Amino acid sequence: MAVYTDVNDEDLIAFLSHYDLGGLLSCKGIAEGVENSNFYLHVEAGSFILTLYEKRVAEADLPFFLGLMEHLAAAGVTCPLPVRNHAGTALGRLAGRPAAIVTFLDGYSIHHPDAAHCSALGEALARLHLAGAGFGLSRENSLSVGGWRKLFEPQAARADEIEPGLRRLIAEELDLLERDWPKNLPSGVIHADLFPDNVLFLGDRLSGLIDFYFACDDAFAYDLAISFNAWCFDAVGVYDEGKGRALIDAYRRVRPLSARELAAFPLLARGAALRFLLTRFVDALNVPPGALVRPKDPREYLTKLRFHQSIATARNYGVDA
Amino acid sequence: MAVYTDVNDEDLIAFLSHYDLGGLLSCKGIAEGVENSNFYLHVEAGSFILTLYEKRVAEADLPFFLGLMEHLAAAGVTCPLPVRNHAGTALGRLAGRPAAIVTFLDGYSIHHPDAAHCSALGEALARLHLAGAGFGLSRENSLSVGGWRKLFEPQAARADEIEPGLRRLIAEELDLLERDWPKNLPSGVIHADLFPDNVLFLGDRLSGLIDFYFACDDAFAYDLAISFNAWCFDAVGVYDEGKGRALIDAYRRVRPLSARELAAFPLLARGAALRFLLTRFVDALNVPPGALVRPKDPREYLTKLRFHQSIATARNYGVDA
Repeated sequence: MAVYTDVNDEDLIAFLSHYDLGGLLSCKGIAEGVENSNFYLHVEAGSFILTLYEKRVAEADLPFFLGLMEHLAAAGVTCPLPVRNHAGTALGRLAGRPAAIVTFLDGYSIHHPDAAHCSALGEALARLHLAGAGFGLSRENSLSVGGWRKLFEPQAARADEIEPGLRRLIAEELDLLERDWPKNLPSGVIHADLFPDNVLFLGDRLSGLIDFYFACDDAFAYDLAISFNAWCFDAVGVYDEGKGRALIDAYRRVRPLSARELAAFPLLARGAALRFLLTRFVDALNVPPGALVRPKDPREYLTKLRFHQSIATARNYGVDA
Repeated sequence: MAVYTDVNDEDLIAFLSHYDLGGLLSCKGIAEGVENSNFYLHVEAGSFILTLYEKRVAEADLPFFLGLMEHLAAAGVTCPLPVRNHAGTALGRLAGRPAAIVTFLDGYSIHHPDAAHCSALGEALARLHLAGAGFGLSRENSLSVGGWRKLFEPQAARADEIEPGLRRLIAEELDLLERDWPKNLPSGVIHADLFPDNVLFLGDRLSGLIDFYFACDDAFAYDLAISFNAWCFDAVGVYDEGKGRALIDAYRRVRPLSARELAAFPLLARGAALRFLLTRFVDALNVPPGALVRPKDPREYLTKLRFHQSIATARNYGVDA
């Protein structure tokens, strides 16, 4: 749940005067995204999303995120398209914050994705990876293997509050992943957070990908592993082979996976599980009292990590290798 | 800021199957109203607001609120119109809560209303009072003079935390208002919370009145006094005679005020100031730590109360009596 900043009509009307969107009709704060303040914006030109970037998003990264959405939309990906103002830029300032307007996409998040949804996602993710080719900007993935130890160590002493033995398990996993993390896999722009919340459907049809504020350059197969963890397990963390196969097979039909990517997949899935275990663990320890945002349970990702630790090859996921 | 309850696609689609609104296109939690969870709902039939009623609204009052909006809309007031389901009722159940769908109104709240806005409001408020005639249900105003002492006394010992001497000031004001509160003024359905947040404009044109969840039966002139306090003072609590006159004159052109109503107006304005001073005072003492909702400053209404205490007749507001 977001909306940290209020926008009044005077400031908003002045801001809109720099765009060709017609008059203001309505603007309502929406509970979407956890990093920024988002508003449903209705103007004479149609429906849009207005985003005010709060402190958690680095202002220096905004040209990357906005430029990426523009690049992907031009390449046929159904993602929000930033609207340029009269100065020719998508990035403005409103209520003392960097601000942008993007197109509004219809669609809703699927609470219980089935194999057909996973298949639609696999295809869309592969198309996203191909569509990123030729995008001129780059952004390092600060939440990949090189960033995990920095995330963990300041809070390590409290890991056993989540579950006894967790500190040691994470420390050993970090050692192994830092040593064995695959290098030089096919890479490019990845979404890096393609959870069900960020994928819109209209019935069985995937209607949009949203929230590109973790996008960065990294291995494509790592992005696939993040979505594999997010979409192909049930609520208690048990792997669903039908969904896993649907996701990966659909992905491969658009962008084939190399033998090296397949061989690395179980390790990438462990890394992807550790990454969300760590951020959820840190978030769970740092919830302001009385906050309306309920932190996600880190143990869901601990269960997934343990499962991947038991996997020798991608074949064990039921995937043809 | 609201949205206390999440709604998933499965439950929402099942809920919508009881309405003739076509398929679900989008549903986003919005930060509107403080009592309920509200959602911007886009379906094939258009844009709507979905409201889930949380604990602070008594379920027994919902037929009054929904029936009132239907009655007022039929009488030409631009307010949200509840949508009836196949069973012929506007009240359903979703995510374990009472729920309703109402039409979406374009427009936005005015941060700095001017005299023209106050004039538009005065006319709309008078039309609302006339349009309420013939509505079959009634609801007592629990936040009128009979309810203030109950609100104050449990917290009275802490009043001086807001400002030294406040406990005594409120106690004396309560004694006076309970003794002198005007009886038998022209009455009917009032909105009782027509602050700028609840009035939508498109430019200078008033486009809608929203949030009827304090509506009740009471004196029309008391409703006018509530809006007078909310619209006709500047940010530091100084009365603006131009706005006050614009509001009251526009009201009287549609629904003339009797000599008794005018004579009672300064006392009604004191009561209206005390009512919001009291609820803001109680809210300020009961904010959960870390909550995202910043309580409104009770002292704004203390300043207004003191001003009204200095007023002998409505003429002192610059109003013709």
